[in-house]
Amino acid sequence: MIAGRPYSLSVKVVISDSQGRCLLVRRSAESKNNAGKWEFPGGKLEAAEAFDEGLMREVREETGLAVTISGVAGAAESMTADHRIAYLILKAECASADVRLSDEHDRYAWVDPSRLAEQDLVPQFNEFARVYSRTHGMVPGGGS
Amino acid sequence: MIAGRPYSLSVKVVISDSQGRCLLVRRSAESKNNAGKWEFPGGKLEAAEAFDEGLMREVREETGLAVTISGVAGAAESMTADHRIAYLILKAECASADVRLSDEHDRYAWVDPSRLAEQDLVPQFNEFARVYSRTHGMVPGGGS
Repeated sequence: MIAGRPYSLSVKVVISDSQGRCLLVRRSAESKNNAGKWEFPGGKLEAAEAFDEGLMREVREETGLAVTISGVAGAAESMTADHRIAYLILKAECASADVRLSDEHDRYAWVDPSRLAEQDLVPQFNEFARVYSRTHGMVPGGGS
Repeated sequence: MIAGRPYSLSVKVVISDSQGRCLLVRRSAESKNNAGKWEFPGGKLEAAEAFDEGLMREVREETGLAVTISGVAGAAESMTADHRIAYLILKAECASADVRLSDEHDRYAWVDPSRLAEQDLVPQFNEFARVYSRTHGMVPGGGS
């Protein structure tokens, strides 16, 4: 018996480019929830596919990027009127930063990790972004 | 293409009883890895089962407990010679604290959350336990 709203799992990824910047993607105006808000690529995995393969498929579909998973970044959660989502957030690296978006998103941005928490994120990622920004800020130096 | 070792997903649960104590279970002497170390119940979910149902099945098999998932607690990771595991750690409540272990574990203990980090845990949960202990300590009071 499941008391309360059912939980589903979503896997998201903080993708870093060769300069250490993180990829955010903006939810299309047509999105049912959080249209116009920024988020990390990833999503619900299909049953019966391997965890890491499913994640890389999701990322490829949403961003066109081939990524290498490098670790676990954290977790988050959200609740709607009829269900809850538990998010596992991984870290990944990409060699090419040549992003090609799907219809799900209409913009992308490479952001200094120390500034992630300042972005207009889907609300369930605010707390994660605050912690990640604090612990993954880029070392300042070079340029002005 | 997966560079490096494949990743799999494991879902663990911090189960609290009516007094707010957390359940730890000790890996049997026959365990291939980390025999004799303490961990949280849970494990790999089967493909094609709903996330929350799979988790409650795992918990029921390992502990005999019927739990209600209440939120997301954090994340962790581990690496062996040939694969990596990403852990999503949830929170759950149980009405009855009547634990019945499977062969996988040989002892259980209900621990004050503020003392989780002092336990002889499977190493990949040490960092999570430190953070959880700091943020979920029980309010002292009553008794000596």
